[in-house]
Amino acid sequence: MQRETASQMINSMNRRQAMAIGGGIVLSSLITKPSLAQQANGEKDLIFHTTDPARNAEPALDKLVQSWITPNKHFYVRSHAPNPQIDPAAFKLKIEGLVRNPIEISLAELKQRFDQKTTTATLTCAGNRRNEHSKVKKVGGVPWMAGAIGNATWGGSALSDILKKAGVLENGKHVWFEGLDEIEKGGGIIPFGGSIPIEKAMADLESGSPGALLTTMMNGEALTPDHGAPLRMVVPGYVGARSVKWLGKIVVSDRPSPNHYLATAYKVVTKTDPIDWTESGPIYRFPINGAICTPAAKAAVSAGPVELTGYVLPSGSPGNSMKAVDLSIDSGRTWTRATMVGESKPFCWQLWKATVNVKADTKHISLRGTDNAGDFMPGRVKWNAKGYLKNSWYKLPIKVS
Amino acid sequence: MQRETASQMINSMNRRQAMAIGGGIVLSSLITKPSLAQQANGEKDLIFHTTDPARNAEPALDKLVQSWITPNKHFYVRSHAPNPQIDPAAFKLKIEGLVRNPIEISLAELKQRFDQKTTTATLTCAGNRRNEHSKVKKVGGVPWMAGAIGNATWGGSALSDILKKAGVLENGKHVWFEGLDEIEKGGGIIPFGGSIPIEKAMADLESGSPGALLTTMMNGEALTPDHGAPLRMVVPGYVGARSVKWLGKIVVSDRPSPNHYLATAYKVVTKTDPIDWTESGPIYRFPINGAICTPAAKAAVSAGPVELTGYVLPSGSPGNSMKAVDLSIDSGRTWTRATMVGESKPFCWQLWKATVNVKADTKHISLRGTDNAGDFMPGRVKWNAKGYLKNSWYKLPIKVS
Repeated sequence: MQRETASQMINSMNRRQAMAIGGGIVLSSLITKPSLAQQANGEKDLIFHTTDPARNAEPALDKLVQSWITPNKHFYVRSHAPNPQIDPAAFKLKIEGLVRNPIEISLAELKQRFDQKTTTATLTCAGNRRNEHSKVKKVGGVPWMAGAIGNATWGGSALSDILKKAGVLENGKHVWFEGLDEIEKGGGIIPFGGSIPIEKAMADLESGSPGALLTTMMNGEALTPDHGAPLRMVVPGYVGARSVKWLGKIVVSDRPSPNHYLATAYKVVTKTDPIDWTESGPIYRFPINGAICTPAAKAAVSAGPVELTGYVLPSGSPGNSMKAVDLSIDSGRTWTRATMVGESKPFCWQLWKATVNVKADTKHISLRGTDNAGDFMPGRVKWNAKGYLKNSWYKLPIKVS
Repeated sequence: MQRETASQMINSMNRRQAMAIGGGIVLSSLITKPSLAQQANGEKDLIFHTTDPARNAEPALDKLVQSWITPNKHFYVRSHAPNPQIDPAAFKLKIEGLVRNPIEISLAELKQRFDQKTTTATLTCAGNRRNEHSKVKKVGGVPWMAGAIGNATWGGSALSDILKKAGVLENGKHVWFEGLDEIEKGGGIIPFGGSIPIEKAMADLESGSPGALLTTMMNGEALTPDHGAPLRMVVPGYVGARSVKWLGKIVVSDRPSPNHYLATAYKVVTKTDPIDWTESGPIYRFPINGAICTPAAKAAVSAGPVELTGYVLPSGSPGNSMKAVDLSIDSGRTWTRATMVGESKPFCWQLWKATVNVKADTKHISLRGTDNAGDFMPGRVKWNAKGYLKNSWYKLPIKVS
């Protein structure tokens, strides 16, 4: 059995079926490593795509939209290597490169010397909905369904405060982040890393455009190893890959990070030749996206009114919000406007609900969205070799009885 | 009168009307500088958007598709400053940066020391079809209709031959081009410039994936000042901006060119804040595109069969070609397949013809295309602040009598 097939199988289960299997579903354990199911379970209620060497998991979609703030047990996990063993007491963060005053600082000093701030922001994997790309032509990587997204309130020190203290030199244009994880890559070991433009790094929390945070807290609880403890970068508005976990080093530079996960991986390419990587720029902002989360895919419904819920995410432009969310039972000929539910904040998703009148011959329900930055979920997006940024209309297959 | 309005007016003229005005139409001269009309005319048969300080012109669409090879008099002109005065006898090209043997070479030596090669390649401005973006929301820049494209046979020295001679060092990853033009920008004077990845620069002419050429010849004639004489870079598959005119210097570097026209301009951005420029990567390959060239926009036609002609351009992926070209009289509900006309070569456009049955209530005819690299002209593209890469379905308004 392929992992992907297993994901699709789980995706098509209804909630009761999924619950019957267990709170924490380990797909790979269903296949080859039954002993991991218990180990990975813990307090999480997630569908695990992999647990060894790296832990990658997403929630069932019906659980994902139970609240605007995603509880930690339903927050997706994306890792490229085993969680590193870090002694918080001995840990020191380094800030170096094009700064007047390089800094080396412990966790205690970080909390003591910098105001502790909070911001609510959605993180989403650039590969969210990858399994839909694979329906066109198989792509590698974690076969994410639509659950590689979550919205949390993050607490920690503002990156801009720390960089002001370090004193960024005039030619400092990009801020590199380097994790303490150890990823086997090309015969060697590399850390996960990436960078963001200096303008993004210096954006103030108070400006209405939340800035990047060096977080130690997630939804009021201490960050867990799965989410990057003891210290995780959180960059609102950007794809999750820029929110580097197990942060160990910050480097200010005149250019983007040469780390594999910025310079090569996480790019939209048709082929994976060297020239394709070079021609394609790094993904920073997430694009508009969305999904129908209930009812489940292939659920049996009766003709007539059907209630739908789901999420939409405006593109990561500062100050952006959703303009309209629509649903269609006839592949886009006619649309029904959804109602927004709960809060709308910068760089955060929005939940929605709608009632559509399903007919006896309805095969699927389509979702589209438009945001105030002029971005929209298109009818179709180009397939790409790594399966990133799938944000075309979300199509939910249903069975009308 | 706005320049853009004038362009639209010209666009809606039929061929006889355009001919009546004159072979070389200078829009700005129609408005403020009548004396330039004659001066700009010469042997060109183009619609001039500007002549002072820079010359920018495109052909009428019916003339554009008269042949697969675009004659020089119908080849669009894109400049950012007046044509520089260059003495060909004194001219020397410099090749420097991360090379073992820096070179300084005259035009005569260039022709003598390097095999003279030819390749046919389409150049197109990244801003082609910009006037359609402006219908959504006004954008600056030359208000190109769909004529900022042309296909020519270029002759000169292969960039890869020259770089092999110079000996690129291991850390040479990008090749910068710098023009001899003088552009007023931000209170100073800068040359037009840009760069391409080293893999593109080293692609061999003989590999079936035509390489970049330092050209002195265009369609068997000596290059003219409007097209970059005495020496123009031509990079098949890339947007025209990378084919730097009046080439004076080549620099091999470990990073992309910092020149304004690669680092900042010619990017797809929603806003023009510094962060938007940094977040967005340079445009290299042109995307798939196309246009209906005859009949003219708003032409009066009778209900029944109408013959159409136009061009399509597969995206600039090596070895790519068109897969299908379709036309619709009902906004995409049904499609009629077009017939390809003439040659199909890598990095070149393709001409097509089709007959569609127009009805009494047909308001416009839509064109879409799909190429073998999986790229397609989408139903709609996102508006962007500089009006680049407009490649959604081409919609030709018609009047049915």
